[in-house]
Amino acid sequence: MHVAGALNTDFQPTRESLPPPNVSYQQSVLGLAPNKSHKNPFPFILRAAAVYPDKLAIAHPDVKHPAFYTYAVWTQRIQNMAYALIQAGIRPGDRVAVITPNWYSLHFVAPGNYETPSVDAHFGVLAARAIVTPVNTRLTLHEVSYILEHSGSRLILVDRDFTHLIENTNIPTIVCHDTGRVGDPYESFLSAGRVFSAEKGWAGLDVEPDENAGAVLCYTSGTTGRPKGVLTTLRGSYLAAIGNVVEGQISRESTYLWILPMFHAAGWTYPWANVFACATQITMRSVDYPLIWKHFLNSGVTHYCGAPTVQIGIVNDPAARPLPRNISAVIAGAAPTAHLISQLEQKGIKSVHLICSSIITSETYGPFTRCYDQPHWKTLTLEQRAKLMARQGQSFATAQDVRVVYPPQDENDEELRDVPKDGRTVGEVLMRGNIVMKEYFRDPEATRKAFQGGHFHSGDLAVWHPDGVIQVVDRSKDLIISGGENASSLAIELELSSHPHVLEVSVVARSHPKWGERPMAFVLLRPEHAPKWKDNHDGFATELIRHARTLLPGFACPEWVQIVDELPKTSTGKILKTNLRKVVAKL
Amino acid sequence: MHVAGALNTDFQPTRESLPPPNVSYQQSVLGLAPNKSHKNPFPFILRAAAVYPDKLAIAHPDVKHPAFYTYAVWTQRIQNMAYALIQAGIRPGDRVAVITPNWYSLHFVAPGNYETPSVDAHFGVLAARAIVTPVNTRLTLHEVSYILEHSGSRLILVDRDFTHLIENTNIPTIVCHDTGRVGDPYESFLSAGRVFSAEKGWAGLDVEPDENAGAVLCYTSGTTGRPKGVLTTLRGSYLAAIGNVVEGQISRESTYLWILPMFHAAGWTYPWANVFACATQITMRSVDYPLIWKHFLNSGVTHYCGAPTVQIGIVNDPAARPLPRNISAVIAGAAPTAHLISQLEQKGIKSVHLICSSIITSETYGPFTRCYDQPHWKTLTLEQRAKLMARQGQSFATAQDVRVVYPPQDENDEELRDVPKDGRTVGEVLMRGNIVMKEYFRDPEATRKAFQGGHFHSGDLAVWHPDGVIQVVDRSKDLIISGGENASSLAIELELSSHPHVLEVSVVARSHPKWGERPMAFVLLRPEHAPKWKDNHDGFATELIRHARTLLPGFACPEWVQIVDELPKTSTGKILKTNLRKVVAKL
Repeated sequence: MHVAGALNTDFQPTRESLPPPNVSYQQSVLGLAPNKSHKNPFPFILRAAAVYPDKLAIAHPDVKHPAFYTYAVWTQRIQNMAYALIQAGIRPGDRVAVITPNWYSLHFVAPGNYETPSVDAHFGVLAARAIVTPVNTRLTLHEVSYILEHSGSRLILVDRDFTHLIENTNIPTIVCHDTGRVGDPYESFLSAGRVFSAEKGWAGLDVEPDENAGAVLCYTSGTTGRPKGVLTTLRGSYLAAIGNVVEGQISRESTYLWILPMFHAAGWTYPWANVFACATQITMRSVDYPLIWKHFLNSGVTHYCGAPTVQIGIVNDPAARPLPRNISAVIAGAAPTAHLISQLEQKGIKSVHLICSSIITSETYGPFTRCYDQPHWKTLTLEQRAKLMARQGQSFATAQDVRVVYPPQDENDEELRDVPKDGRTVGEVLMRGNIVMKEYFRDPEATRKAFQGGHFHSGDLAVWHPDGVIQVVDRSKDLIISGGENASSLAIELELSSHPHVLEVSVVARSHPKWGERPMAFVLLRPEHAPKWKDNHDGFATELIRHARTLLPGFACPEWVQIVDELPKTSTGKILKTNLRKVVAKL
Repeated sequence: MHVAGALNTDFQPTRESLPPPNVSYQQSVLGLAPNKSHKNPFPFILRAAAVYPDKLAIAHPDVKHPAFYTYAVWTQRIQNMAYALIQAGIRPGDRVAVITPNWYSLHFVAPGNYETPSVDAHFGVLAARAIVTPVNTRLTLHEVSYILEHSGSRLILVDRDFTHLIENTNIPTIVCHDTGRVGDPYESFLSAGRVFSAEKGWAGLDVEPDENAGAVLCYTSGTTGRPKGVLTTLRGSYLAAIGNVVEGQISRESTYLWILPMFHAAGWTYPWANVFACATQITMRSVDYPLIWKHFLNSGVTHYCGAPTVQIGIVNDPAARPLPRNISAVIAGAAPTAHLISQLEQKGIKSVHLICSSIITSETYGPFTRCYDQPHWKTLTLEQRAKLMARQGQSFATAQDVRVVYPPQDENDEELRDVPKDGRTVGEVLMRGNIVMKEYFRDPEATRKAFQGGHFHSGDLAVWHPDGVIQVVDRSKDLIISGGENASSLAIELELSSHPHVLEVSVVARSHPKWGERPMAFVLLRPEHAPKWKDNHDGFATELIRHARTLLPGFACPEWVQIVDELPKTSTGKILKTNLRKVVAKL
């Protein structure tokens, strides 16, 4: 990304954002043993600033007041934030809520939550030894109130567009107008921190001495019930971020484009991973697909992450075209279809497929597994290979065990018995290791249940293939039991989406007088094919069911097909099957 | 590296080296918390074998009985070793000595110590929860006896060529004939382990529950006094190995050639780093330069490590030619000259320069710093850039602090005061963090001294440049005090080596009636220029001193120059200044 001149003309950091001459990045180490450092992702930025002070760290270009921070300037801002938080009374272990923009529409123009307070906070709050609580801005006032109260947040950093979400709160609040200019209350807050520091610099800030202290408190977007607070540790964040660097081969030559929401499992630890690698990050306030393609084609983007729904938007955007060089995409949040993977590859986007599926991402710092492509796959067709790659894979670099086990016999059954690696027997996905969360905050009962048998229970159902790769077939509640046979709604969706007219599809169980349950498919058509079926929904249903019969056993073929204009989704882009089930219940 | 057929024809693993069908790589986790894994480099191989069972892991091609192990086969061999060690009475924390071939000549044909017992042991001994004690084979019988006794080794794995080093020992010994064939006592030992396992597999082996337990006990090749035993931890080994993967950008597409001795600081953790990355490793029994070039040109080598003295041998070998693609070299063990770096670059070898200098490598798991090239260096000449790159740099990915401080006032002075970053003030290099050793084994006094002020004292003297980069100017005892001025022998060597006729040079202090001390240079001439000066040593001395005067202050110019046929070196290729000083003392 070329920013020549930008630093001098487009953007002037506040006086307090400028590091002093002869800056020292040394912190007080609190008498630790000579061979012990805190595993904490925040000091990554001290090293990056020491090694590459003048390198572009953060670019926030597509706004009225663009901001471009070098590592030296950004690190100073983070130091200012840490002092500002301390001045505001934040003590070690306190929670600081961050509410910044998020997707305002769910299709094709899916804006992001990428502004400076969010990315600053992943370092600044940790530098103050406090815990970041990112809040999903698609939530209602009522839900946000619950999270603020449950987390016991002591301070809120909020974007100008989301102050309505905290109308009722008494918690001290800093509003950010996303200008980066003097006069912005957020900038004033940072500047006051610099003054308060009395130029003690990094040496005036202790590193958190307990690497098992909390890092991020992220609330699940749970499709049912109250959101749960997933508390992660500094140690886990450090190792997960390094794992992402290794798996994604992120380096100081990399440029990462923020498409994934940063509130989603702390952006899968990428705010830290990119800094560990000394890469450049581009943030967008509004993630629209033409803008993504502008950056793909012109800003040297090498890496991004996104759920399949976003990837579908990317490859189907009119601006999409083959790229002059490969970009690495990490797909997770749900299982990508083979069709999507092959579309991405045709555009020059090399996908690093990591785990999928809803619930587990927050509890495992984002991705935990990866389907490693094998040398002998090179002889396969793209379609065959994509089918193998769409599986969830094996545990990744710094993850530890991932297993598929038979469900427990009862509440107290702690014995874990692996299912055979036959690609057929369905069991639950369990994980353990350093990149599993610490606990559900203030919910020991939910924690106990989730950790039964010393492993984290993901709630995902999967098979284990003979090559050791696991493949998620469904969430427990998404399995369709048709005539005593278990049909995976995910497997059905995978096959239906291979129909050339299908853009996106979701399948749920609908009760059936004879078979107990039968699959019902909700289909979003590709815009170019939609007119053909506009007045002939039945014709399309017949066509799709015929297509399904060539690919699926009879019990797994949809009995009903409904064309929709939109699929209901969570704020993180996951399809809300709960809502579809409500629709089905009324039929 | 192409091995098609090799596995089937050239080499048949013993029956017991073949993994069983449906092998499980799961170990017993001893009731650890769900979010805690042991940071231990040994389980890297379990993941590699699970993900890439059929990938070539180890190639040992240049011997009478070549061996090629896939990850599945190699992992089985390691499991066999673990059981064999347990059967032999090895208990957690016991030391197992490994004595395998080493350099038998110090110039141009520098053979390695790279055979299967050594690389096997880095995993198999750890899998048995014991400690690897690699022994330098250039040592005498007397020195080896000392190490075996001091380490309290309970078992010895020894190569057929080095049994004379353990003549007097009563310690149980397994001899390896490096055949990989049935009948080799080493193979019988492994096979017996498989039988002893009763097919309990990995589930029958507990992971070491204490990540601060010992991993490797490596004896310094100390130029003076008794060797000290540097004890490293599992945690440190894990983080150092991952750091090397990130810094070297080693990936599953990489092929690593073993040129560095594996006994030297556990091969700088590369035995584990390569496996973490799922790369392929090529081992050589004898490191001769034509063979290295054969592999560079034909075996897809992407990475190697080596001290400057080996790098000099590589670039000056007649087989050397520009490479069709870049190879990454890590240079450490002493400071490379700008001349050497530019020579390497001209051959297509991209050097990742990490720290240098003798004493610190063992105590810091190998490299601790790196000189990160900056974008704006691209505008410099190769010579200018190489000069910047020859500096030791800043702390690397998983290292923590490296500082340059004023020497302590006295024995009890624990206060650390950084020298100014002026590129002139000389201080001592101190390190701390996860990749600093645990202790000097059974030597609390040496440990206390080395860790004064909560940092590891490297004994290296350095300046700190304004850009944050440190540059080693000398070992404490290598400083030459001439007329009250401190002259760095390393700085003098750097300048003298820019003379086109100089292949290698070493400078030591020689007493002088007027100035106290003055520099004396010992020079090894390039073979093509040696004849010219054969009968005119004085002429060369005049010429070199004139050259030095254009580059160095008068007090740093050598007063005496002596042409030698060979420079005395330690078994790890470091110049033995102690021996040169003895020569000087007699003049």
